[in-house]
Amino acid sequence: MATATTWVPSTPPNSDFSLANLPLGIITTRSDPTPRPATAIGMHALDLKLLSSRLDLPSLLPSIPSLSSTLSQPTLNAFAQLGRPAHRAFREFLQDLLSTETTRPELLRDDAALREEVLVHRTKVMMELPMEVGDYTDFYAGEHHARAVGVMFRGAENALQPNYKHLPVGYHGRASSVVVSGTGVHRPVGQILVDGVVVTAASRKMDFELELGCFVGRGSEMGKGVGVDEAEEWVFGYVLLNDWSARDVQAWEYVPLGPFNGKNFATTVSGWVVLADALEPYRAEGIENGTELQGYLKEGRRENMFDISLEVELTTAEGDSTIISRTSSKNLLWSFPQMIAHHTLGGCPMRAGDLLGSGTISGPRGAGDQGSLLEMTDNGKKEVLLAGMDARRFLKDGDTITLRGHCGPDGARVGFGDCRGRIYSAAGVSR
Amino acid sequence: MATATTWVPSTPPNSDFSLANLPLGIITTRSDPTPRPATAIGMHALDLKLLSSRLDLPSLLPSIPSLSSTLSQPTLNAFAQLGRPAHRAFREFLQDLLSTETTRPELLRDDAALREEVLVHRTKVMMELPMEVGDYTDFYAGEHHARAVGVMFRGAENALQPNYKHLPVGYHGRASSVVVSGTGVHRPVGQILVDGVVVTAASRKMDFELELGCFVGRGSEMGKGVGVDEAEEWVFGYVLLNDWSARDVQAWEYVPLGPFNGKNFATTVSGWVVLADALEPYRAEGIENGTELQGYLKEGRRENMFDISLEVELTTAEGDSTIISRTSSKNLLWSFPQMIAHHTLGGCPMRAGDLLGSGTISGPRGAGDQGSLLEMTDNGKKEVLLAGMDARRFLKDGDTITLRGHCGPDGARVGFGDCRGRIYSAAGVSR
Repeated sequence: MATATTWVPSTPPNSDFSLANLPLGIITTRSDPTPRPATAIGMHALDLKLLSSRLDLPSLLPSIPSLSSTLSQPTLNAFAQLGRPAHRAFREFLQDLLSTETTRPELLRDDAALREEVLVHRTKVMMELPMEVGDYTDFYAGEHHARAVGVMFRGAENALQPNYKHLPVGYHGRASSVVVSGTGVHRPVGQILVDGVVVTAASRKMDFELELGCFVGRGSEMGKGVGVDEAEEWVFGYVLLNDWSARDVQAWEYVPLGPFNGKNFATTVSGWVVLADALEPYRAEGIENGTELQGYLKEGRRENMFDISLEVELTTAEGDSTIISRTSSKNLLWSFPQMIAHHTLGGCPMRAGDLLGSGTISGPRGAGDQGSLLEMTDNGKKEVLLAGMDARRFLKDGDTITLRGHCGPDGARVGFGDCRGRIYSAAGVSR
Repeated sequence: MATATTWVPSTPPNSDFSLANLPLGIITTRSDPTPRPATAIGMHALDLKLLSSRLDLPSLLPSIPSLSSTLSQPTLNAFAQLGRPAHRAFREFLQDLLSTETTRPELLRDDAALREEVLVHRTKVMMELPMEVGDYTDFYAGEHHARAVGVMFRGAENALQPNYKHLPVGYHGRASSVVVSGTGVHRPVGQILVDGVVVTAASRKMDFELELGCFVGRGSEMGKGVGVDEAEEWVFGYVLLNDWSARDVQAWEYVPLGPFNGKNFATTVSGWVVLADALEPYRAEGIENGTELQGYLKEGRRENMFDISLEVELTTAEGDSTIISRTSSKNLLWSFPQMIAHHTLGGCPMRAGDLLGSGTISGPRGAGDQGSLLEMTDNGKKEVLLAGMDARRFLKDGDTITLRGHCGPDGARVGFGDCRGRIYSAAGVSR
């Protein structure tokens, strides 16, 4: 299917949303403010709730019994719980439906009235958070990032902690502040140390983190681990994720229990969930781990990462945009199946809608391929040059960070669209 | 009302559930497996869903418009969102209804048929998790515990980290593994170091943690902090909380991002939520903090803790029970309003159903008043003696830990009932 073309107009070759992708998201429109599932195809969104009310899905897809009811929900949680085989069958159905060579032209391609009804130009669409997030866990699998930050704070000798190559280090994040791309982010107020004195002030070291996010689609039983080779079946799909970080708040608070207010003020995810199957053709090997792994982390396949081309764009309040980083999502030491196997090893239950972050992804070069300003500016010691004669050590109010990522050739790209957030000044709090 | 007596039979003077308490919980019964709200009075549960279907609550309590619909929900989240004034009015209504001197005897006291219907002996009642937990955050406000553990791992000089007295240190816990009292807990399998070698095995250092839990009843806006003196209005009520801990798993994994699998396998809460108002008469001063606090943490009132008598009972598989610790919940450095003010300082939003843990509560003596085996046994170096010629360094399979807590005199006790969990052997995981 990857080279097939679509009959849907306004699908330029460089669109992230080719027929080879068909990600799912939750949309609203001015004419219908009810949040509902949709897929993206080129410059259009296909309203799946409306489509399922017009087509006889139980007859067309008898292998997915409650499909229509999951497509009328305000989140993708119910659809995700249908399981990987159902996601696959539904995506293949949509690929056929939207293909120029569709086997069922009468269903949509040749029905002008229905086309008009269910295809909405994406400029008229607002995105909502695609899933109700149960728990959000952020891992730390970007070894180049972990090493660079370790050198910065503990010196080259102790850059990586002794556990780093033995287990996917992670921590529990905050689910209530996960927001969809486009949501504004207030610079957090926090306790910070200024010349050794504790003050409460707006963060002066506001940063982004370039991550890949993974939505869990299936629950697991409490007390029972998920094996690493079956963990793929727990993956619903992927998003880009920006784990905004206030480095000065984090530095003062994080010992001994880890990051808290330095991270929990906002985490942005892209609105379209790229289904796990869409990324399968883009598997790649990750960072070599020279350590003998524990059995529960040993994967049957070597190509356990995806080679997604990632970029970070910084746009100033004046509107000048600069790509400040380019790298690949294969720069990870641990795969999502390894994270899931580790997360559940002790019996911690997964739920559909749980969100896993990869940790900050930086490339191996250490220049032009880093996933945070912390690394690019050596914790604010030097500047990153921007277009428009501007420069940054950390983010300014009015700055917008946009993460993008895609695989595949023009005409068959599998991409994420934007993961975007603009920084607003610290909110006034009467205290 | 605190000295009034109830007409409900089987309410012994030493009951945690006097008329001065009236906590809320979610019950099921064999005859009706629908989870629904109830209050506890002595040895009985009063089915509030049934009661609200029999009484004309809109007329009796016109100040709480949607009360009846919140009482037909399977969790207390909707009721909690009614706000403190509504909780107060409803509790006072119940106190009058159940009092010997009730002003409305015809409503329930003198209606034998209705009494028979809505009052269920608690031996016939199963408890469910009282709230759907959004996020679970565990603080570390038990200074005696933090100090003892700090001495153990970093020496007396560096026992408390530099930030400890400036802010309520906390970390994000796992919401999916919060369970109600009575739920069995599997000993977790995890990565541990044995003689310097990494192995994957059942934890050998299984521990409990004695904590007070606080359920948030009100949401807050993202980007906007909650002031410390208004934070009381965000509190729905309190539970006892056992933050089960696998010390060997935790020791290996926790650097640099904090506890993960060592904690996320289970957290047990007591089933009856003691409403914030019921604890008001038992305010006390906490641990003196000699540090000049940041403005957002300065409370108007000095008595910002509760003096709840706490105890920990260990029952062996053979059925021998020993009280291994007794202390008070006033042994905290930070109050829940301070935790809420800190948690939201950077704009992290609260949601009704969020759960906050106090951190392990240990007394100042360091003997007989400690909130974990880690402290009692100096990390397994010595034994705690039990009834039945037995002893423990850490928990064995088959052991049951029961936390209890109450305030007030006999006849007007405000208590929590049991917060109980039994350890089962590590679940077999096919890998």
